[in-house]
Parts: sequence; structure tokens; C-alpha cells
Amino acid sequence: MVSWKNLDTLAVYDKFLALKGTVDLVKEMTGENGAARVAKYTVPMACGLNYNFAAKEVDDNVLAVLKELAEEAQLTEKYEELYNGAVINTGEKRLVLHQLCRGQLGKDVMADGVNKREFYVSQQKKAADFANAVHAGEITNAAGEPFTTVVQIGIGGSDLGPRAIYIALENWAKQNDALKMEARFISNVDPDDAAAVLKSVDIPHSLFIVVSKSGTTLETLTNESFVREALKNAGVDPAQHMLAVTSETSPLASSTDYRAAFFMDDYIGGRYSSSSCVGAVVLSLAFGPDIFARIMDGAAAADELAKNPDPMQNAAMMDALIGVYERNVQGYLCTAVLPYSQALARFPAHLQQLDMESNGKSVNRFGEPVNYVTGPVIFGEPGTNGQHSFYQLLHQGTNIVPLQFVGFKQNQAGMDVDIQGSTSQQKLCANVVAQIMAFACGKDDEDPNKYFAGGRPSSLITGEQLNPESLGALLAHFENKIMFQGFLWNVNSFDQEGVQLGKLLAKRVLAHETDGALKAFSDLLEI
Amino acid sequence: MVSWKNLDTLAVYDKFLALKGTVDLVKEMTGENGAARVAKYTVPMACGLNYNFAAKEVDDNVLAVLKELAEEAQLTEKYEELYNGAVINTGEKRLVLHQLCRGQLGKDVMADGVNKREFYVSQQKKAADFANAVHAGEITNAAGEPFTTVVQIGIGGSDLGPRAIYIALENWAKQNDALKMEARFISNVDPDDAAAVLKSVDIPHSLFIVVSKSGTTLETLTNESFVREALKNAGVDPAQHMLAVTSETSPLASSTDYRAAFFMDDYIGGRYSSSSCVGAVVLSLAFGPDIFARIMDGAAAADELAKNPDPMQNAAMMDALIGVYERNVQGYLCTAVLPYSQALARFPAHLQQLDMESNGKSVNRFGEPVNYVTGPVIFGEPGTNGQHSFYQLLHQGTNIVPLQFVGFKQNQAGMDVDIQGSTSQQKLCANVVAQIMAFACGKDDEDPNKYFAGGRPSSLITGEQLNPESLGALLAHFENKIMFQGFLWNVNSFDQEGVQLGKLLAKRVLAHETDGALKAFSDLLEI
Repeated sequence: MVSWKNLDTLAVYDKFLALKGTVDLVKEMTGENGAARVAKYTVPMACGLNYNFAAKEVDDNVLAVLKELAEEAQLTEKYEELYNGAVINTGEKRLVLHQLCRGQLGKDVMADGVNKREFYVSQQKKAADFANAVHAGEITNAAGEPFTTVVQIGIGGSDLGPRAIYIALENWAKQNDALKMEARFISNVDPDDAAAVLKSVDIPHSLFIVVSKSGTTLETLTNESFVREALKNAGVDPAQHMLAVTSETSPLASSTDYRAAFFMDDYIGGRYSSSSCVGAVVLSLAFGPDIFARIMDGAAAADELAKNPDPMQNAAMMDALIGVYERNVQGYLCTAVLPYSQALARFPAHLQQLDMESNGKSVNRFGEPVNYVTGPVIFGEPGTNGQHSFYQLLHQGTNIVPLQFVGFKQNQAGMDVDIQGSTSQQKLCANVVAQIMAFACGKDDEDPNKYFAGGRPSSLITGEQLNPESLGALLAHFENKIMFQGFLWNVNSFDQEGVQLGKLLAKRVLAHETDGALKAFSDLLEI
Repeated sequence: MVSWKNLDTLAVYDKFLALKGTVDLVKEMTGENGAARVAKYTVPMACGLNYNFAAKEVDDNVLAVLKELAEEAQLTEKYEELYNGAVINTGEKRLVLHQLCRGQLGKDVMADGVNKREFYVSQQKKAADFANAVHAGEITNAAGEPFTTVVQIGIGGSDLGPRAIYIALENWAKQNDALKMEARFISNVDPDDAAAVLKSVDIPHSLFIVVSKSGTTLETLTNESFVREALKNAGVDPAQHMLAVTSETSPLASSTDYRAAFFMDDYIGGRYSSSSCVGAVVLSLAFGPDIFARIMDGAAAADELAKNPDPMQNAAMMDALIGVYERNVQGYLCTAVLPYSQALARFPAHLQQLDMESNGKSVNRFGEPVNYVTGPVIFGEPGTNGQHSFYQLLHQGTNIVPLQFVGFKQNQAGMDVDIQGSTSQQKLCANVVAQIMAFACGKDDEDPNKYFAGGRPSSLITGEQLNPESLGALLAHFENKIMFQGFLWNVNSFDQEGVQLGKLLAKRVLAHETDGALKAFSDLLEI
């Protein structure tokens, strides 16, 4: 029987807090002990990835307490409840089933009178069949010409995840003759966003996917209207060029305004929806259904590994435990995500939503205030770019920011150049390992301006190459890490009540039902 | 006579610290007092912009102390020293002259035997003449055909600022028939970055600008070689397609490998170099020299306003003071930059470098450790996108993150759509003001999950439209804010010793001169 308790009510909590400052990272990572840590503090992940936490502020004592914490917090049992269909999203009283899109982890999950795994597979198949028909030239525009571009119209989870994945695999796909259609994304209600995207595409040969679970998202409906106008002006029938990804109960579901509709449900939150039709339709059109299936296979393999109750065999759980230790014991607010891969340029933006929207909460899953800090601030840019930007503060600033590095042995595009005895890929990899050590060990110097205190913790995920499988595994790793952290903090990681108030006030502004400061600010912008 | 003192040695310091928690933002912003604050707490900026800080945790008492702090810290006098050519960059013993690229703020500044304003103007003119000749078809490729694309090869300050500016004005330029050439950027040493950009451009009709002050930046030289190979493979002579932006003493300066060379000097740091030839060449080619000059005019106007000793008339100074108050008195670590303008999509990334590399320091300008926190962590994404991503944590997370909003009355592309009684631009603006009030005042609710504590401070910069002048003013505002904050913290905002250690260790890895953990990590990635 699972027991949902606040972190500070667990028996291990005092022992957990007592870990503060017990590990001297500079000392641990210097000399041969450092090499031993690199060999020892590593967890195999799915699809050839590895999670190395040698440069985190841990030792065997810390790890023993973290393991005890994992057990007392029943992380494995809670995950089991989740994938077997319990109402984990307590606020909205919903099941949480994004993993079920990728594979059957436990019992059959029945809801709304259907087997949900069958439902998700059927929708993926519908997306696959549609994409195959487009690629085969069976589904065309009115002139019988093929569609060459797909444009996703969505915001938040309907945008960030699918966009990050598309960017991550675009050049891999070009290199592997798997780019079937170019993809573009319209998200912002700023009309300049849609205008710029529409100018960059060949409208008569473009398909547009309107993505809104409720069918009522203001930004998305507004951008849909914007696009419909542009299609009409271009002399094409919007109904032939527009698709819908929505819930079966939304106004979009049975509308004749769309050439096809693909369904999601209430059990998959926006930020976890890349595995649903929100990702399946656009990514199957862009790369082909087989590539989308390979992403899902990578994610499913990571989901399986996340079942292991031993953190040393479960990278998502270990990452989660160390993150909570850094947040609640060491007192760090931020985490920087630093992939040494240009293809992962927008992956930090996706993780920023995934993490901050899931665990940026002040109440527990029962709606009671918690007495400890919860989710961190997440930011990041790809390396080596970030080194020439904000790393100065990370190295020598007055606050410690834990770091999450990612690196791959091989690049994607298969082009490289050997300069001064090394390839660009080798330089890229050399930089990531150099940074880890610079952050961990620092450097003494007579000139205090050139002194590095070190003691700045980081972890490193390594892989052979960023491809559909490893990307899927990486995506699921972070989703599962965040899920475990939500369990530890005892928050509901699957709702987002914090976004509602702004929406409500914006409606009032547009209806001119304002007074006081809200009216005064509205006047400033002449709304 | 200017006196450089640590913040905690100023007479006003205790009074400053005593401000903690004295302002109840919810109370201040509720009702008619809120409207009065919006009218009162505003500072005019250059080019029609305004800085409104009504929703910051200030009142007349706080402002009086901040003004006293500005005076005792001699912010105006220090700025005067800077623009008159003092050695403000103490670490590297250099003048700090980026503002001089935009206008003559004080005395003539002589260095290296020349009048530096004349030098900067001469280089801008050289860039303008070159760009005009390219646009007129006088400078062409070997086949006599016009160049249509310009590709900047640079990293850090040679990339982020010019790229953010290009993206900010690309659609404005299209709308105003001012887009002369498309611009692309290659920065990352990851070979997939250059490979992707090269695939996207028409090489025989592209100019490539190699940007490196020292002529030794690893990433840039590597990418230059990568591009040279591609040019040769495309059958074109690299010397006809490549330009250099560098210092007069660099190996690139007189090389015949470049069709033309444009010069910068040691008095302009990378992150401040958009106003130098680092920005002038690529932006003059992309938009024409007149547009670049208009950006500079906007920046120059902001630089002039920054001379005013009264924070109520000096937005950069007020912004700086409030930021230091939030950091050192209120204890907030992060600041989120949230432009409600898709065109400013990469402006937060530029500000992230500008701020974190300038003020992420632990020693003062004399190399002595400071006893207080310095520069904040900066991150951000454009609104409304961010609302559907990380705002959950900003509204209901356990830590307060101060916010910097930016909004414009008009969009750039001149296309809009009226849905449910309002345009997209109105919806965009309604959202930004709604967010400010939601953050400031929060909302009571019986359900704690729907409760918003409020008390989360933000400021708002408003403008008519994002155009070359207002963009220049915005850029200079933040540069000058960061400069004033550096003065307050008594740090050197113009060096970046924190980036050196990683470079050193990366060289060792590539030379295989490693042991211990560094070797073990290198083995993980098979370097």
C-alpha cells in the first residue's frame, strides 16, 4: 500500500538534512580517487546512454541515505501505481498515462470504457497511415501535388517538445535520407510569429496541424484563424490543408474544417504529450512513422529501466534523488542543462517547461502548503556556445548552480574537419570533460581574479550518437526524473493551476473590465 | 575624485539592508493606489520607450535610499570616468569604449595614438562602403553575380548580440523593404552547426565573416576551416568570399585569405561588441548601413540619458538600483527577461551573456573577494510562449524570481487578425499587463492549489514598436544597467577570467596530457 507523505515527515528526513556540506568535491575529484569515482558512480541508461554522477557532491554515505529515502518515499511503488492507472493527478482527478503511449509497463489500463494502450496505439497508427499516404502522394493538395511542409500550430507542450525533437533530428534525418517533409512551428499569439512562418513556407504545398486538447486555447485558435485567412488569400481551401490534434470531446474533433483529426485524452498533460498524437502526427509527417516509432522505443526502454528500485540501476531515480538533495539539503535554486550538441539547441527550453511546470508548486498533492522548497529554475544553452556566454558566473559567481551536461561520441551530419590534430567533434567532447573538471576541482592562483574555488557539481549523460532511440531515451529519462522528484516532494507534477490567473485577467483586459493598476497598465499599451 | 568602494563599506549600506521586507507589494498594487503607482513610478527612456517599475517592491522610502546609494556609489561620476577614457577594465588594464562607437559622450578619447571615436567611425564607414558596394552589385562573386547571403562565423559576443539583433529586425526589415541580404550564424564547435548552416545557404552567393578579436578563438578558427573546405568543394575561391573582423594586431588583419578586413580593438569586450564592426559588418550587409546607423542612434540616445544623476530620470540607473536591492536586500538569485515580442526571441540569450559574464564575479575590481552576492542568473523566453511553459513556477513556486517584461503597442509585420473582438497584438499586450498584476497581487482562493500569494515583483518596458531605434535604445539600456550594477558591486564588469580554466583543460585533453578523473572522463567519450 502506497503512502503519500510530505518529504519532511519521512523518518529519514533528519538524516537527509544532516548530509549538508559533508562532501568536499574538490578533494573527492582530485587525483586517483577522482578516476575511481568516474568508474564507480555511473548508471547505465537505455539505448547506450550512461548517467555519470562522479562530479556530484555525493559519496557512499550520501548514496546510502538517498537509497533509504527512495525506499521510504516508495518511489518504485508510486511509479507502479502510476503506470497501472491510479489517479496520480489528484488536482484534476486524472490518470497519468504518457508512458503508456510508448509501451505496456504493467496491467491493462481501462478508462472511458476502453483499453487505453489500444487507444494510443490506434491513434499512432492513424497518424502513421496518414503520413504514409501523404509521403506516397495518395493524399495531395487540390491540384494533386504533394505536400512538402508541415506546420504545427500549438503552444506550450504542443510546441516545445515536438519542436525540440524536430530540431534534434532534422540534420540526422537529412544525413540518413529520412527527412520526408520540412516542419515549421507557430506558437506565439504575437502576430509576427505566424506572419514570419507563413512567409517562409510554400502555402499550397503545406499542411497545418492545429493542436489543442480542449479546442479552446486562445493562442492556438487565434493563430489558426490567422492561417485560415492566409490560406484563403492564397486561393486554397483551408479544409484541405488543416488537420486537428485534439480530444474526442473538443469542438474540433468532428468539425468538417479539418481534413483529418487525431485524438489525445485527458490523461496526458501538454508537457508530456510528445509521445501522443501531439508529437506523432507532426513527427511522422516530417520523418516518417518508422522514425517516430524508434523515438518511442527509446523512451519505452527508459521507462522499463525506471522500474528498478535500486538507484544504482535506475538513472532517472538517481538523478531525481541527487536533484532533491541539491535543492533541499545543499540549498541550490537553479539547474543548468548544457547539451554539447547543437541538435539539442531547444531541448533545454523543453526541459524548462517539463520541470518548472511540473514541480514549481507550493502545495502538496492534497492541496496543503509544503514547508520546503520544491522544483528548481531550469535554463541552458548548447555547449560550447554557453562557455562563451554565461559560464563566467557558473565558474566564479557568488552562487553555486548545479549542472547537467550531455555529450555524444559521434556527431550527426557526418561532416568534420581536422584542425591542429583534432576533429571538431573531439574538440567538442574535450570541452565538456574539461568543463566538468574545472567546475569540480577549480584552480588555485595567486591572483584572486584567476582563482577558481571549484566545488561546483555536475553530472554527465554520454551516448554514442543522438539518434531517434537515444533521443527518446533522453526525453523519457527527464520525464521520469521529474516524476520521481514530484513523488519526493509529494506534489502533483501533472497539473498547472498557476497558469490560470493570468488567463483570467487577460480576458478582463480584453473585455475592458478593469480598474486600478490593471487599467493603468492597459492604458500604457493602449489596449 | 571617484572612490571605488565595496558595496558593504558604504555609509548607506546598513540603511539599505534595513529595507528588507518593508514593502507589501500586494497591498501597494491593489486598488486606486496601484493606479497611482503606475502613473508615478515610470522613467522615460530613449526612442519612445518607458521603464515602469510600479510593480517592483519599492515605495518612496526605498527610492530615497536607492538614490542615496547611487550618489554615495558615485554612479554618474564613474560613468563619466568610463566614457572619458579611464582604465575601467582593471583586470586587463583597458579602457571601456563600446559607447564611443555610438557617439561622443565626453572628452576626446585618445589611445594607441589615435582618436578612438574617429577610429570607430572610420571602421563603421568602411563597413558601410563595403555593404553599399555589395548591394550595388559592385562587389560580386567571381562570376560577377551578386551576393545574397551573409554568414557570421563567431561565438559568444561575436554571435549572440548580432544574432539577437538580426532576428529582432528581420521581419521589420522585410516589411519595410530593408532586407538586403539574409544572414546566418555559425558559432558552435559542434560540426553539425556549420554543416547545417552550409546546407541551408547558396554557397556561391554567400559572404562569410570570420569574427575573432584575437584571431585565435578555437571554435571560430575551426569553423572557418570547415567553411573553407566547403567553399573549395563548391568550386569557389575562399579568399573572394571571406571577410575578417578582428583587431589590427591579429594574424587575420593583413592576411590575403580575406577579401576585406574590418577592425575592432581591445577596448570593446565581446559581449559589448554589437556596436563595433562585429555588428556593423553583418548588420550593414543584411539591412543596409542606414539601418545599422539608426540602431546606433537609438543606443546613443540611451547613453546620453544614462548621464542623468537622478534615477527618476535615468532608467538604466533605476533598473540597476532595483536589481541590486532585489539581489542583496531581498535575496533573489534569478531574473527572468520576458519580452512580449517574438522578434526578441533571442534577446534574453544575449542579455544572459551580457549580464552573467559581466557581473558573475566573486572578487572586486582590485581582485579582492567580496562579502556579498553579485550578478544574478538570467533566463527568459518570449511571451506568451513562456506563459505556457515555466510561468507555473514563477507564479506558485517556492522561490521568488523578479521579472523584466517588455511590450510594444504595434507589431512589426503589419499583419493581424481580429478574433473574438480583439487583434492578436491586443491579446499579446493584454497578456503582459495581466501577468504583471497576477504576479503582483495574486488571488485568494479556498482551494490552496488555486491560491496565488502574489508579491512577485516585475518591471515593464513599453514602446511603440520594435524598430532599429528602439532596439538600439533597449540594447544600450541593458548594457548601461549592467555597468551601473558593476559599479555598485565594485566588480570589474569587463573581463571574464572565469572562462579561461576550461579552455586550458580542454587543450590538455586534446593533447592527451591528462590523468585522474580528467582522463577517466575523456575515456568515456573516447577522445
